Amino acid sequence: MTTRKKLTLGLFGFGCVGKGLFDVLNQTTGIQANIKKICVKHKEKPRPIPMENFTFDKNDLLNDDEIDIIIELIDNADDAFDIVTKALQKGKAVVTANKKMLADHLPEILKLQSTCNKPILYEGASCGSIPIIRNLEEYYDNELLDIVEGIYNGTTNYILSKMFNENRTYADVLKDAQKLGFAESDPKLDVEGYDTKSKVVINNFHAFGVISHPNELFNYGIQNISINDILFAKEKNLKIRLIASTKKFDKELVCFVMPQFVDKNNPLYFIEDEYNAVMLQGVFTENQLIKGKGAGAFPTASAVLSDISALTYNYAYEYKKYYQNLKITVNQDKILKVYYRYKEESSIEKLKIQNIDVSYKSNDYKYVIGEVSLKELRNNKELENPDVFIGLLSVL
Amino acid sequence: MTTRKKLTLGLFGFGCVGKGLFDVLNQTTGIQANIKKICVKHKEKPRPIPMENFTFDKNDLLNDDEIDIIIELIDNADDAFDIVTKALQKGKAVVTANKKMLADHLPEILKLQSTCNKPILYEGASCGSIPIIRNLEEYYDNELLDIVEGIYNGTTNYILSKMFNENRTYADVLKDAQKLGFAESDPKLDVEGYDTKSKVVINNFHAFGVISHPNELFNYGIQNISINDILFAKEKNLKIRLIASTKKFDKELVCFVMPQFVDKNNPLYFIEDEYNAVMLQGVFTENQLIKGKGAGAFPTASAVLSDISALTYNYAYEYKKYYQNLKITVNQDKILKVYYRYKEESSIEKLKIQNIDVSYKSNDYKYVIGEVSLKELRNNKELENPDVFIGLLSVL
Repeated sequence: MTTRKKLTLGLFGFGCVGKGLFDVLNQTTGIQANIKKICVKHKEKPRPIPMENFTFDKNDLLNDDEIDIIIELIDNADDAFDIVTKALQKGKAVVTANKKMLADHLPEILKLQSTCNKPILYEGASCGSIPIIRNLEEYYDNELLDIVEGIYNGTTNYILSKMFNENRTYADVLKDAQKLGFAESDPKLDVEGYDTKSKVVINNFHAFGVISHPNELFNYGIQNISINDILFAKEKNLKIRLIASTKKFDKELVCFVMPQFVDKNNPLYFIEDEYNAVMLQGVFTENQLIKGKGAGAFPTASAVLSDISALTYNYAYEYKKYYQNLKITVNQDKILKVYYRYKEESSIEKLKIQNIDVSYKSNDYKYVIGEVSLKELRNNKELENPDVFIGLLSVL
Repeated sequence: MTTRKKLTLGLFGFGCVGKGLFDVLNQTTGIQANIKKICVKHKEKPRPIPMENFTFDKNDLLNDDEIDIIIELIDNADDAFDIVTKALQKGKAVVTANKKMLADHLPEILKLQSTCNKPILYEGASCGSIPIIRNLEEYYDNELLDIVEGIYNGTTNYILSKMFNENRTYADVLKDAQKLGFAESDPKLDVEGYDTKSKVVINNFHAFGVISHPNELFNYGIQNISINDILFAKEKNLKIRLIASTKKFDKELVCFVMPQFVDKNNPLYFIEDEYNAVMLQGVFTENQLIKGKGAGAFPTASAVLSDISALTYNYAYEYKKYYQNLKITVNQDKILKVYYRYKEESSIEKLKIQNIDVSYKSNDYKYVIGEVSLKELRNNKELENPDVFIGLLSVL
């Protein structure tokens, strides 16, 4: 049977997940892996473990021949790509949880692995503790998937849950989430759906063999949501969730990130707080759901740990769906039925909403229910208007 | 990266799952595997594909050197063990979905793999389409798991869902399930919890490294459930689910299969019809849930397919938790708080129910809520009485 290697690790970053990994490695008994050195940026920052563990020079890790694996857990995507590239070129395997770096550079990541003949694993980059990448690679590799959709961002789901369950405003809950460490001080990547979109790009690659640049896909977040939108949902026995959706129609993928109104028949209705969930639908397995924590030091570190464990037997992604050359393309030409809250009447026309079948006006707020094309949403500047909010009711 | 082999398969059994696998292999494009011959039992049974595909002599498969993998999908556990043993001894890898055979023979299965140096994979044996075994092996291998529990049997969950949602009797729904192919003509293994218990034994092995013989563990099913029990649950805003529960307390596992009353805070409350779900709780990942179909030709065949796919790169289970020698034992000494419906007053004493805090009597039915030890339940013959029904409220 398989023989497992003993590994020496070099760690970049000692934030929430980096520290989490350090603790997890100390507690688990099954894996033979030892962190030799940790490279961090800020010299003045106090550290919870002795300073002899740290360096500020990345070359101390990259040029150390004893280090087998570089674990990349820093914030900055550009710096991360540089580290990952150099590590692979130096003949080291890489584990990263940097979804933005990956989504922005999938073609290069693929090429680097093949030219350097070293693997890069990134279970922690998509949906926190949920083992989605490995299951797509190893369990759904021969499945004919039709749908991969879900809640991929813990921060926004936490905010939406609290707004709904405690009748609180967006600003109020966001402040709270920042205090608890669930939201960054600059929450843009999370609340505007960019983080979720990076995960869509990564998941699409493994589920359908399709590479898109994040810029090609539509994302709209929850930054302009109001209590009125929540009340609208409650009246109809719905909830609002920020959903990453990829659905295959014949040879075309329709995919986007936006708030959706979901009812009790949708399993995502029941996903609360910082949990994530991925729903999969395939011809053989039919419907599946995997739910787990999408944020937090230990849940993400556990995904990183599983990658380290896999490297003890030289595991590498095979990207089978990609190499099967399934000729699946992305289609932006779908019509969506939406709820659209607005202030100025001109806004409806600006967004080119058509076939309006509900129009509501009160002193508090105004909305319409109508149809709009995904293509229009992707290119229209009106969605930057802080006085509007759009939520999906259904794909037509 | 990994090179995948082309495989020649020999299939035993052409029932629901066997036929499903045949169809699935014909539809998927990614895997290079070909069924050379199918061994079946009944000569007179009409077959949906040409007779040249079949043989009635197992040696035609076992002695064929061209066949790399034996896929064992027959009903009879003893015959299955014989086939699996001979296949491994002949140097063939094995894929099986026979949970009873596996649970009854785990030590032998382990030894056979090691002496024959050939793997046996059995994702389809536990929880239908849910990839639980592979995730326990590959994702939770370094996790410190505390809880693995869930709904592992689609037939009983279908019956309980229909009884609850449509106010129908057990006998009525069972008949229905048999017509639809969700239940066997002899439903004992499913409805009395034996099938679920086999899966508990298999999951415990991979999650905790613990081997129990099924006879050592308590199982109680839904065969005596009445509409009164369902009404009791409804009054309290609860549902009844047949739950496989394994919880670790320090170095001891408490595990059993029995109907449980669950509320809306329990994710299993929302698992309906033929779906299965596994909840996992670990120190690092915290809470996870995987949900998928637990019955049906394609869902189970998809699990079998994933094993065949894994064998194209010589994958084998490592049984890491077992070889870590964690010294975890099984503890039957727990006190359970239960709902107990009975007819004769003497029944309460016979089952040694103590500390009764609710006692209800009407013309329709009688129940008590009290405490009983797991050890007592396991050995007490009173539970064979068709006039009683016991359901778990909580573990004390």
